Amino acid sequence: MSDLDRVLAQVDADLDASLERLFAFLRIPSISTDRAYADECRRAGQWLADDLATLGLEAKLNATPGHPIVTGTSHAGAARRVLFYGHYDVQPVDPLELWENPPFEPRIVANAEGVKRIVARGSSDDKGQVMTFVEACRAYQKVLGRLPVDVAIVVEGEEESGSANIVPFLAAHKDELKADVALVCDTGMWDAQTPAIVLSLRGLMHDEFVVRAADRDLHSGYYGGAAANPLHVISKVIAAVHDADGRVTIPGFYDGVLEPPEHVKAAWAQLDLTPENFLAPIGLSIPSGEKDRLLIELVSSRPTFEVNGLWGGYTGEGSKTVIPSIATAKISCRLVADQDPAQVRDAVRAFIRANIPADCTVEFLGGEGSRAVAVAHDSPDLAKAAEALEKEWGKPPVTAGEGGSIPVVGQFKKVLGQDTLLIGFALDDDRIHSPNEKYDLASFHKGIRSWVRILAALAE
Amino acid sequence: MSDLDRVLAQVDADLDASLERLFAFLRIPSISTDRAYADECRRAGQWLADDLATLGLEAKLNATPGHPIVTGTSHAGAARRVLFYGHYDVQPVDPLELWENPPFEPRIVANAEGVKRIVARGSSDDKGQVMTFVEACRAYQKVLGRLPVDVAIVVEGEEESGSANIVPFLAAHKDELKADVALVCDTGMWDAQTPAIVLSLRGLMHDEFVVRAADRDLHSGYYGGAAANPLHVISKVIAAVHDADGRVTIPGFYDGVLEPPEHVKAAWAQLDLTPENFLAPIGLSIPSGEKDRLLIELVSSRPTFEVNGLWGGYTGEGSKTVIPSIATAKISCRLVADQDPAQVRDAVRAFIRANIPADCTVEFLGGEGSRAVAVAHDSPDLAKAAEALEKEWGKPPVTAGEGGSIPVVGQFKKVLGQDTLLIGFALDDDRIHSPNEKYDLASFHKGIRSWVRILAALAE
Repeated sequence: MSDLDRVLAQVDADLDASLERLFAFLRIPSISTDRAYADECRRAGQWLADDLATLGLEAKLNATPGHPIVTGTSHAGAARRVLFYGHYDVQPVDPLELWENPPFEPRIVANAEGVKRIVARGSSDDKGQVMTFVEACRAYQKVLGRLPVDVAIVVEGEEESGSANIVPFLAAHKDELKADVALVCDTGMWDAQTPAIVLSLRGLMHDEFVVRAADRDLHSGYYGGAAANPLHVISKVIAAVHDADGRVTIPGFYDGVLEPPEHVKAAWAQLDLTPENFLAPIGLSIPSGEKDRLLIELVSSRPTFEVNGLWGGYTGEGSKTVIPSIATAKISCRLVADQDPAQVRDAVRAFIRANIPADCTVEFLGGEGSRAVAVAHDSPDLAKAAEALEKEWGKPPVTAGEGGSIPVVGQFKKVLGQDTLLIGFALDDDRIHSPNEKYDLASFHKGIRSWVRILAALAE
Repeated sequence: MSDLDRVLAQVDADLDASLERLFAFLRIPSISTDRAYADECRRAGQWLADDLATLGLEAKLNATPGHPIVTGTSHAGAARRVLFYGHYDVQPVDPLELWENPPFEPRIVANAEGVKRIVARGSSDDKGQVMTFVEACRAYQKVLGRLPVDVAIVVEGEEESGSANIVPFLAAHKDELKADVALVCDTGMWDAQTPAIVLSLRGLMHDEFVVRAADRDLHSGYYGGAAANPLHVISKVIAAVHDADGRVTIPGFYDGVLEPPEHVKAAWAQLDLTPENFLAPIGLSIPSGEKDRLLIELVSSRPTFEVNGLWGGYTGEGSKTVIPSIATAKISCRLVADQDPAQVRDAVRAFIRANIPADCTVEFLGGEGSRAVAVAHDSPDLAKAAEALEKEWGKPPVTAGEGGSIPVVGQFKKVLGQDTLLIGFALDDDRIHSPNEKYDLASFHKGIRSWVRILAALAE
């Protein structure tokens, strides 16, 4: 029995214990975007650091101005070294009432077809995915007493809230973290049977704006018809952002957006990403974006403008005949190719200002952003990882872009000068960022096995 | 010293005690629109019924399917009888943090010019105004042992939440409530020195609609660009309601809207209601409504469509890259002349449905309404009341329409067959429905004195 087979057998034999460790991690409500959970974020980071220490790694909980960054490094003199990145923070859980089980009480739930799933906030994004790599390392330690490659594991606690501190951290710890290749486990499979290696990610710019009209809430009888209503103003601004064809009308918004090569578009057209298989599962049927684009383009190679939150006026029970004085919107843009987050922010703000009537004011809060990233599709490590995944899943991985954003990936190239392989085992129906987030037991189990194979392949 | 002068002197002498009674009334948080305050509404009604009993009136707290209705009646065989209407319920107090003092801890506060004001929720709308009439009756009882007219005082607890139960109550108690004329104290002065008798009120239709897209909240990276965003949809609907000239575009919305006679418009043009004196005090300068209308038209003789509340998606701290599944709006329309609330509701709903994309759904909750009312401007009682007001204030009252809505007034004519005189002492800067609502001490004191004079005049 080869070393590899022995390690894979250890993964299978240890699965229940692996799940127990993951559940302990999932029970910590490490919501990074809400300051009220700062202590829980620290607790989650400490839990992971303690666990990495049991693998014989040099484990640290590194303080930052925000939530701490966990590192676990080995320097055993292996031929090659990999940097693994993930995050231990999770999204908020609202609306809480839509959760079938409490979000931080993980459990295994079988669906109608008997498919077993790990249900909890963070099960898929990203604690479950991080632990696939950690458990792969554990199996090597247990069976061989060493890892096939040296590792620098970096797990941050601010991925869901802007990753403000990871970049300075990378720059400050360059030498310690430098590796031959970076591995990120925060993306998805193509489908439940088909693995994927993501070749591009969209960037992100998020902002918040507050529209103010009168200096107080007004009686809609006395002032209605004469006083500006900020809810009307903010609605007109938002409505003006997209034209009838779903295109963003903000001047300069599309600067830096590139068309993929024809052969790539041709390959995408073959991918059979249709409204039936992509939108029907979430109760929709009609793509809402630019009319002249493939669905795969809309969600990977085209930029977006989304309102993520909007509120103002009376939102309680019953009615209140008020003209409010304030309306607020949280927005975010997914960026592609060479779009510059700062330029997009400025274009968006200029557009909003231009659509605010003379009597009203607008204030902006936020405006952070990150560029899109493309991963080299000709690196030898990509070929090795693809071969390893094919061995585990019985079919080659799909290599395409993905619409999500992982701000740090661009920095691995920029700061550390290394390529990144984006390999994850999440599924489209994992409900990440939504109530009842889940991670298939198969994603977790075969995800661990996949990393065992990939680490062996990258060692050579 | 005439009886009238003795009663007026009693009003002056008793002012402090009158204020103490009002404060006790104001301390009860009778917010009718929020079920959590149902007991407080009952408590406010009971307090008033007990107080009316001390005037020798037959006082009752009449149960309804909603909040109880207070009545106080006399049958002393006076030559004439008046029905007085007011309400003891108040608006919600949010945003609470903008109140300088707790809303239900009334106090006298002098402004920079030394003008004394009663500050509390309900001080102006409508507990303070109700008590001007009650205290006038009290002064008559004290001095003469009788009222110059018989009275039927009716004070409801649902004026701020749709007045669902007052109409059936009027119908069921027709004979008991029938009077020669109805008096309503829920309107304003023209300015701090000039009294007013309101000749028309706008009607009201309020509704709420919920737009749904995907069957769950979505990750804006994976689905952004392809999935419908209900916040975009609801913004486009709201933005489509008004054209660039401030006109409502909803087909049929203006059916039943009438143009006032030219001589009325001419008189209004003389009223000197300008952006400087009407909008500047609330921090605005440009009328937002139909461009070709007088300000007085916009706020009294023209209908409106207002969004009173709007919300959806993530509204907490920080950012959340989510595409929400639901967006909600509370809306209300001020109605004029012959507009039919049910027809306006149906026109609004049809317009909204027509603006919802195929993939989304819309649900409506609410849709209650009341017609606008016009008060006969040639009735002898109007002339008597105007003369009485002139004696108290030293100048004749302005007679114009007002933009607010008092649903029940139309019913006095319809159900009881009697005209209504709308006489109140509120001021534009009373901040009714807003934080720091106030009622000038002069409004309260001279309001009581005004009713003493009006009751004497109406007795003849």
